[in-house]
Amino acid sequence: MSRSRTGSGELLVEIQRSGAVPLHQQLEAGIRARIREGLLRADAVLPSTRALANDLGLSRGVVVEAYQQLVAEGYLVSRTGGYTQVAPTAARTSGQTRTNQQPTGPPRIDFKYSRPDVSQFPRAAWLRSVRRVLNEIPHSTLSYLSGQGSPELREALADYLNRVRGTSARPENLLICHGFAQGSRLLLQVLVAAGYRKLALEDPSDYELRDIARAAGLEVVGVPVLDSGIDVEALDRSGADLVLVTAAHQMPIGAVASPATRAALVEWAVRRNALIIEDDYDAEYRYDREPIGAVQGLAPDRVVYAGTASKTLAPGLRLGWLILPDALVEPLAAAKLADDRGSSVLDQLTFADFVSHGEFDRHLRRMRPRYRNLRDLLVTQLADRLPDFEPVGVSAGLHILVWLPPDLPAETVATAARERDVGVHPLTPYWFTPPGPPGLVFGYGSLTEKAVAEGIDLLADAVGTLRP
Amino acid sequence: MSRSRTGSGELLVEIQRSGAVPLHQQLEAGIRARIREGLLRADAVLPSTRALANDLGLSRGVVVEAYQQLVAEGYLVSRTGGYTQVAPTAARTSGQTRTNQQPTGPPRIDFKYSRPDVSQFPRAAWLRSVRRVLNEIPHSTLSYLSGQGSPELREALADYLNRVRGTSARPENLLICHGFAQGSRLLLQVLVAAGYRKLALEDPSDYELRDIARAAGLEVVGVPVLDSGIDVEALDRSGADLVLVTAAHQMPIGAVASPATRAALVEWAVRRNALIIEDDYDAEYRYDREPIGAVQGLAPDRVVYAGTASKTLAPGLRLGWLILPDALVEPLAAAKLADDRGSSVLDQLTFADFVSHGEFDRHLRRMRPRYRNLRDLLVTQLADRLPDFEPVGVSAGLHILVWLPPDLPAETVATAARERDVGVHPLTPYWFTPPGPPGLVFGYGSLTEKAVAEGIDLLADAVGTLRP
Repeated sequence: MSRSRTGSGELLVEIQRSGAVPLHQQLEAGIRARIREGLLRADAVLPSTRALANDLGLSRGVVVEAYQQLVAEGYLVSRTGGYTQVAPTAARTSGQTRTNQQPTGPPRIDFKYSRPDVSQFPRAAWLRSVRRVLNEIPHSTLSYLSGQGSPELREALADYLNRVRGTSARPENLLICHGFAQGSRLLLQVLVAAGYRKLALEDPSDYELRDIARAAGLEVVGVPVLDSGIDVEALDRSGADLVLVTAAHQMPIGAVASPATRAALVEWAVRRNALIIEDDYDAEYRYDREPIGAVQGLAPDRVVYAGTASKTLAPGLRLGWLILPDALVEPLAAAKLADDRGSSVLDQLTFADFVSHGEFDRHLRRMRPRYRNLRDLLVTQLADRLPDFEPVGVSAGLHILVWLPPDLPAETVATAARERDVGVHPLTPYWFTPPGPPGLVFGYGSLTEKAVAEGIDLLADAVGTLRP
Repeated sequence: MSRSRTGSGELLVEIQRSGAVPLHQQLEAGIRARIREGLLRADAVLPSTRALANDLGLSRGVVVEAYQQLVAEGYLVSRTGGYTQVAPTAARTSGQTRTNQQPTGPPRIDFKYSRPDVSQFPRAAWLRSVRRVLNEIPHSTLSYLSGQGSPELREALADYLNRVRGTSARPENLLICHGFAQGSRLLLQVLVAAGYRKLALEDPSDYELRDIARAAGLEVVGVPVLDSGIDVEALDRSGADLVLVTAAHQMPIGAVASPATRAALVEWAVRRNALIIEDDYDAEYRYDREPIGAVQGLAPDRVVYAGTASKTLAPGLRLGWLILPDALVEPLAAAKLADDRGSSVLDQLTFADFVSHGEFDRHLRRMRPRYRNLRDLLVTQLADRLPDFEPVGVSAGLHILVWLPPDLPAETVATAARERDVGVHPLTPYWFTPPGPPGLVFGYGSLTEKAVAEGIDLLADAVGTLRP
């Protein structure tokens, strides 16, 4: 097989930073077009993700995501040596249309993260709440809203979060938004206007926020995560005045911030006059004990708490909330109002009724054993079929990180699994530069037990072919 | 009464353009603080709105809105000569707390525009639609959404709009958003990224969009409105490559774009390679005949059509839609997805069911005679009690523009009405510079017949005191 090294100069795709299209999509479109036009030929080797990220001034996660997408679409092939080539069948020879031998669309069994089991959405209870709301609310609530959200929902959520998550929230400090996507975007926008400059993120962590933060005008830096949560000494050295933590269940490693880490974090924020953003995305799902309370409860003036119904009820509801220090309430409410004039009042009031009638607690009680069973099965199957894969993290949440043996690049495993119609997802884009050890992030929330068992079987078969 | 002319230099309030707080609110806060701190004393005369707008680099509408708000709050007083003073009771004398003799909160009878009668929201029919949706939808629809919106709602709306508004829409060209607020913000953002530079707006027109457009990076220019709609010759001279029109019922004048204007508008767009944004905010409410079809139907490739349920059902639903030319669909869907991951799926599917079961048509048929009666009553009362006030515009919509006799500044009338707990709203901020003749914009959609009659009585009494 011939390898024509492609200088990254040839891949200088035009990227519009102010544009509305996500950067990884722009990059994908650019590479796709070059392959279709024959400018990148079969078996051409692409620049490393790090080199291309440097050349284009992008974060490495963006390039990794684009490469992975194009691998999944069959344009690129990920090779065992850690490099990426144009697929033999992808490049168009003149006069022919492209034939794509890779499967397209989502894989039959997909361990993709972030999907709860929406087949368990409590439809009957939700309908009862809608009926009560439509029967009872005064007309005036259907008019334009405050940017902060319905008082009824802010009250119900403050009660719930103080009880279940150990927060210290008054309804006046809550703000309702369309999930973490809108909440974090508006929060960062307001914080930049208030003078914050440098955001520290856990390394590894969800990579989508990095570009959102940079677009808002923040410098972004990665800070290592230990078994006891974020490394506060490294955070202190980083010079950040903002940090985002997933203290209750680190995304993706699954660690829980220790009491010492939590105290040090708050001490750091006070000493540095800094702010902590606590993304409490899935803390309701702890299976081995009561979940650890939120950091927000320790220092309500130093922490913005973010929660969402996307992991507990359904992403399609687009319901999220922030608990804000006093000084941030008015600017955030104004920003929300300017953004979309507030969230849908019927959804808010229905959710308020649902929470205050105990239906939210009931739903969570029902879901915990289901997810716990799926998690236990996944761990057992991995131990059985892939004993040198190492699952880590506490018994919680809807995902699990698995460290890979050093001879197996995550991308190679993902490509081999994809050929068996199974989706597994490399840890790579979650790392800052330089990347840490290889791993896979398994989401299991939306799968059946049968799918988990079969998926790991197929994955083990695929891994078997990669070994001598 | 002594008049201490205040140089506008003393009013240089710090304005954060990139900030999340609307400009007029920043200006209000700055002026309020100066009055509270005694830096602006009782009876001090403020700079003219035009001078202050120039000094601060703001649009005049922003300054006018801030002054009006502070008049309503009792900090400022609007005087007959057209100038604005600090209220005698507002400025704090040292050691005393401010006493405010003006009424605060919304007036008892408020002719504010943009509120439909939410007491008529079809709760029973809406609940039936929610029930059908929760009984019937497949689980997968509750997961994360496309940025474009639910196919079911796009299909139902395309059918409805093609039938009722004469649009030429395929479901693939529709995008669902959180009302015009989010839709216009995302649209302008995408158009700027696509290279558009100069937006023409009708003069007079809704002023909120001006700062949104400038924040998106567009130059903004006003183009006069005639009885036959926007002046297309002036539009052509303006050098704009984008125009926003309210062709079916001009906001606020109430004119309808003539067939000649509509043809000239499309011809202009084709010749200039320009784009028309058609804000069809209330076209369902035409009382004297069938509403004129949308301009979009004439040139689907040259028009972005924007509609909303805020005027027909309830603002609290936050449901809006765009019909897009092919080339804009993908970038808008990507922008919507990045903004908030899509709109709530239950709201979308409920509205789809509501529309496709004919409930939307039924609701509109029921509301038209109600609004028509209110409008007729308002016109009759004005003719009876204030015969030199001149209502204009076709019999349509939820508002009416009334020209004032030249001796009566709109702000003076508004202040006198406010003292009787009646809210009437000057046309002033709708004008670009230089402002046109004085007028008041009356919204009547959310009022009862009794309130309209009593409101005009009280207004007439107030106007009586202003005349010798």
